[in-house]
Formats: sequence, C-alpha cells, structure tokens
Amino acid sequence: MALIVQKYGGTSVGSIERIQAVAERVAGFRARGDDVVVAVSAMSGETNRLIALAQEISETPSPREMDVLVSTGEQVTIALLSMALEKIGCPARSYTGAQVRILTDSAHGKARIEHIDTERMRADLDRGRVLVVAGFQGLDEGGNITTLGRGGSDTTAVALAAALKADECQIYTDVDGVYTTDPRVVENARRLERVTFEEMLEMASQGSKVLQIRSVEFAGKYRVPLRVLSSFEDGPGTLITLEGEEQMEKPVVSGIAFNRDEAKLTIQGIPDTPGVAYRILGPIGEANIEVDVIVQNVAEDGTTALTFTVHRNDMSRAQRLLQQIAENLGARSVLAAADIVKVSLVGVGMRSHAGVASKMFATLAEHNINIQLITTSEIKVSVVIEEKYLELAVRALHDAFNLTDTQQASY
Amino acid sequence: MALIVQKYGGTSVGSIERIQAVAERVAGFRARGDDVVVAVSAMSGETNRLIALAQEISETPSPREMDVLVSTGEQVTIALLSMALEKIGCPARSYTGAQVRILTDSAHGKARIEHIDTERMRADLDRGRVLVVAGFQGLDEGGNITTLGRGGSDTTAVALAAALKADECQIYTDVDGVYTTDPRVVENARRLERVTFEEMLEMASQGSKVLQIRSVEFAGKYRVPLRVLSSFEDGPGTLITLEGEEQMEKPVVSGIAFNRDEAKLTIQGIPDTPGVAYRILGPIGEANIEVDVIVQNVAEDGTTALTFTVHRNDMSRAQRLLQQIAENLGARSVLAAADIVKVSLVGVGMRSHAGVASKMFATLAEHNINIQLITTSEIKVSVVIEEKYLELAVRALHDAFNLTDTQQASY
Repeated sequence: MALIVQKYGGTSVGSIERIQAVAERVAGFRARGDDVVVAVSAMSGETNRLIALAQEISETPSPREMDVLVSTGEQVTIALLSMALEKIGCPARSYTGAQVRILTDSAHGKARIEHIDTERMRADLDRGRVLVVAGFQGLDEGGNITTLGRGGSDTTAVALAAALKADECQIYTDVDGVYTTDPRVVENARRLERVTFEEMLEMASQGSKVLQIRSVEFAGKYRVPLRVLSSFEDGPGTLITLEGEEQMEKPVVSGIAFNRDEAKLTIQGIPDTPGVAYRILGPIGEANIEVDVIVQNVAEDGTTALTFTVHRNDMSRAQRLLQQIAENLGARSVLAAADIVKVSLVGVGMRSHAGVASKMFATLAEHNINIQLITTSEIKVSVVIEEKYLELAVRALHDAFNLTDTQQASY
Repeated sequence: MALIVQKYGGTSVGSIERIQAVAERVAGFRARGDDVVVAVSAMSGETNRLIALAQEISETPSPREMDVLVSTGEQVTIALLSMALEKIGCPARSYTGAQVRILTDSAHGKARIEHIDTERMRADLDRGRVLVVAGFQGLDEGGNITTLGRGGSDTTAVALAAALKADECQIYTDVDGVYTTDPRVVENARRLERVTFEEMLEMASQGSKVLQIRSVEFAGKYRVPLRVLSSFEDGPGTLITLEGEEQMEKPVVSGIAFNRDEAKLTIQGIPDTPGVAYRILGPIGEANIEVDVIVQNVAEDGTTALTFTVHRNDMSRAQRLLQQIAENLGARSVLAAADIVKVSLVGVGMRSHAGVASKMFATLAEHNINIQLITTSEIKVSVVIEEKYLELAVRALHDAFNLTDTQQASY
C-alpha cells in the first residue's frame, strides 16, 4: 500500500465532467489500496476571472487582498472534487491551505512554504479518507492567507509529498509526459521514460513548461519521486529521478529546449578595465530586469564587448539604460535585437562525454545557421540564433542526436 | 467617536460599481471619525451559481463540503471591498469567518455562533483600519468551515456588534426601512421611525422579510441597537429598539404583516379524548413539517376538530399523513385548502389596549371578508382568510388603524 500525492491542474478540473473524471481516477487508486492525497488548482479560467474583478477596482490592489481573492478559486475545486468522490462512494475530505496549516512566509503572491503540519492529514488518511487539498495557497505566521504564485499547485503537491514522505508525487497535466522537445515543432518528438531533476530544471527554464521550476527544485531537494502524466489518457508518463538512482545507461542528450521570449543586447567598444561587467549589469539588475545568457569577449583593438539576453518585454527599457551606461563608460555603441531565439541541448550524460558541443555546431553549420552566441554549463549547451531558423535548428538537432529512436538511448 | 457595525447584502455588493459605492459610504463614516466594521454577503447570484455547480455533481452533497464551497462567495466580496476602500485611501483589512474566529457549532449549513474573538479586530481598529468581515460563515471546534444558512450575514453583523459592544448595527438593504405593511400592496404604507424587537420578530415571521429573524432575536438578546437602511439612498431608516427604551407614546398597531405561503388542514369528528392534539401533531412534527397556526374547537356532537396551517409546499405530504392519522383515531374527515392567507396586526401597544381584535373583525366584516381562523398573541392578532381577499383586507385594515397618517401614532 503506497501513499501517493497527486496534483491536477486547472485544465484537468476545468469543468464538472472533468472533476468527475478526476474523481474516478482517484477512486481507482484508492480501490487498489493506495492512500491518496490530491492537490488541485482552480478551475481553468477562474483565477483570471477573479483577477479581472480586482483590476476593475484597482490596477495595484493590495497583495494581501489579492491572495484572499484568488485563493477562493482552489477552495471551490476542493469542495467540488470532494463531493464528486463521495458521490461515487469514496470517503473524502477537503482542506484549504489554512486548514492543513501550510505555513509560508509573508510574501503575498509569491510566498514560500516553510512548514506543513501532517498530524491532521494523517488522522484522516488513517480513517480511509482521500484528502483533497487546495494547491497554491497557505497562511503566514499572522494567520493571513498567502499564495505561492501562479502554477504553485505543483509546489504544493511536492511539498505535501515531502512532508508526508509519500512514495510518489504524480503531476497530472494536459501532456502525457516530458518530451525530447516540443512535439509541435518536431512531429516525432519522443516521450522520455525518465529524466533527471537537473535535466528537468534545464528543460523547464528553457521553455518546456510542463512543470513549475520551483516544484522540481523542491522535489530534488527532498528526494520526492516525481512523475508527470496525462489526466486525459492512461500511460506511465515520465518519471523524474535522482541521477544515479537507477543503474541505467544515461543518454548523452535527453532533450532539446528552446525559448522564443528573449532579446539580445550588445554593448561594444568598452575600454577593458576591471569591474566593467559589474558597472554594466549592476544597473540592469537594480532595474529588476532579469538577465539570462551573458557573454563577454575581447576585441582585437583591446576594447571589450558584452552581450546578454533579457525577456523581450524588457528590451526597450534595458536598451535605454544601456545607452546611458555606454556614455558613462565611453563605450562605442549599443545594439539590440528581438528576432533571436535560444536553443539548448540538455543531458546529464554530457558530463562524461566530449564532443556534444562540436557536433551541435557542426549540425547547425551544415544547415547554414549562423550562431550568434554560445554558452555552456555542465549539462547544457545553448546557442542563440536568428528566430527564423528555430524550427529548422530544433529538427536538425533532434535528428542528429537520434532523439526519435525509441529503441535505444540517443547518441 | 462611535463604533458602528454595518451589513451589506448581496444586492448592495452585486457589482463592482456597487462595491465602490459601499466603499464610499463606509469611508464617509470613517472620515467623520467613527470606527467601522463591515459584514458582507456574497455578490448577488454568486451563492446560487456555486450551489448549481454542486447540484451538477450530487443532489445531496456533503453539508461540510457545501460550506467549503459557498463560503468562497463572501470571501470574494471581502477582498474586493477591502481593495475598493484602499483605492480611495481608507485603510482596510479583510477577515474570513475563520480569521476572525467566529466560532460556531458544527451544524453545517445552519450553524449557530457560539463565540467571537475580538482581540485581533480591536488591534486592527486601533490602527485605524476598517474591518471587512465575511458574513454568514464561521468555523467549528474542529477547524471546519461552517455557514449560518442563507441570509445569515445579518446574524454575523449583529453578533459582531454584540461582541464588540458596538454603538449601532446598521443593516443596509434594498428598502429604506421597515414599513407599516408591504408597499406593493398598500401604496401609502408608511416607513416606521422605530419598531420594537418583538414587533419586528412578529413582522419578520409574518412575511415582512426585511431582516432575518435570528438576527433580530440575537439583537434583542444582546441589546444591540439595530437600524435598517437603504444602501442606495440616504435616510434615517428604521431603528429597532428595546421596548420602553424611549419614553414615547407607542402606537397600538405598528404594522400589518401577511403570508401567502401557507395552506390549511382540518381534521374533523375526532373523539375528544386527552392526548389527541399530540397524536395528530406529533407525527407531523416528526415528518419535519413546520406547523404555524393551530386552532382546536369542540363541536356540538362532543367530537372535536383541529385545524392548523403549514407551508404550501408541505400540504400534500401533510394531507397524506393526516388521512392515516384520521383512520387510526376514528376521525370523520380530513380537509385541505391552499387558497388561504394569514393577515396579522402587530403592535406592542396591544398589550395595554383592548379592542384591537374586535375593531379588526368589524373592519373585515364591513368588507364581507369571512374569517376562517383566529389566533392571538400578546402583541399580535392573526386571521386566516380566503386568498382573493388579501389586498382588500390589508388596505382596509391599514386605513382603519390609520397607519398612513404620518402626523400621529396610529389608533
């Protein structure tokens, strides 16, 4: 008899029919003898409806009151799912974040979980009840309602699994697992049986938005086995494992991630003196602009050039700042480009295999795709290329690294 | 500087514009130096929307989960009203029933308030904040969310006023006070400046549904001055007072109430033996059918007849039961009639004035209205008449007791 924590997102509980389907699935696990704790999101559309109401009143509503407002979304779902479970003879009990006592810090709208009481939940599990917990919400020390930020229901599920020492945390979504790359770009993208937490982190932050990054970090930290599955069809999904946990041959490259949301900024002809990078990126950070890739090079004339990427929405603001900085530093010019994308190969196996980067560059060269920037980490190689080459680049790399072959690990 | 508790119902907070209007009104009191605690209902239509969702899942959803579900309605309102107050520069803070700690018993859907913690509210009032409290909800000893039943927001407001020893509890509604009778029936019905708690109780239970009965009982018990006002226009409303509190001449008759929702049942030719009333009304009560007027008479042949009224929805069920009972008792026959109404004169002054009942009967006789049943209490005389005479009877009595005269108390 296992203890399983399941999470169903807004699409999976988006209508009464879907809530009833979730109830059937949960009751199935219960019937096989498992203890089940379910974390749920608001019905799809509900959070946006509530936010729109608040926006009618104020463009900058109090974060405390926003949390009081939007936390009602999950509360509706827990009540309805508990009713649906009881209707089919499966004893159930709903819990708001406050009722569980999911204690968080006081950062309204983006709170972090600090502690979860398990006593009351254990007592209900011992009575044979399914527990239906509101995702995404908690309460702070002062008894105020907090939320973990959008998509935070994944984090709730993982935190519940960690606190209850669950055997598995299952995240049900509208996809049936983690793929080698986005199936909308590469038709024969392959579902991964397993992926490591670190790979998943790189995939998620690169745009394969199956799971919230924070929930994956959390799962890795507390060693909670995490599985991504479809709530609409049966299947094993993708298990997210600790590296080396299973003695399997790791593929060199697990997947290809890409991100269309970035823009590139370059400042050229900077006198190459110590502290230049800080004098450029310091003011950018202070303006709350998040920087992703950073590359610095020395030019032949002894000056230096620094290029970095930011979210496209921040490009013009960053560009204005950078022009000011360039004047102060006596730099030559500032360039900005929005028509770029980042493409990344991700794989834990890269650590022990040379040649991944060069094979990537060779593949792109074969297709006449010019590489603008390169950055590497232990388990990732990223390139920035012109946006129009995105699909071509991802498909070519998917073939070159043999990611479609279902018979064997890629290489 | 007074401490005022205000209550706004679903219609008063039925849209963003109305919530903003409520915020303006509350901020006005605050600006005059009053401390204000506001209890609110769900936006009109919201509770029904939530109930409909539950009904899609189950005809008999768990009462515990129904309370989790419907309590989100008020939670949305408290957040939005707090935002609207802050938007116009009036510091505010929302409280769910659980956050106040409105402790109730565990009767989900019809819980009774047992205790209200005031410590946290007092601290916020001392900081100059308006408190916006979710009406209609609380929590039980086990930390479960409870609701007081529909319309229970009035009770929340009165209970808050009692716990905080407020100077006045103001109930804002879509009418501008309590009237001598329903203005839809008598055009020149008059708004009462004052009415006693007992009169209000009789009026409310007779169908003048301005306030929830339980909130009036509560206010009387804890001596909370209660005022009914319009949330759409300014005006003094109607103050509900303790009798004798003000040394004013009490009118004999304060108002006329009526009720179209009743049906009449008669069982005739019962052998007149002790315990007969119980043997008839016991099974009716056990079937959860509420009985209003009860009249028993002895007939000339030594048998007895018992007549009582029930809600019209319960008539056929009561009739079936009564036929069974009649057989067991050896009674002659059972009659049922749905085309009846009850009309009542209400007034504390009746206690010290004779002749009210006979004037009532004379007035009805003048208009050829046959009286089917009569029942009296210390401050009320009720008659049951044929439904088609309702408007005629109410208008005739309104004139006869001079209730339209705004210059003097009626007589």
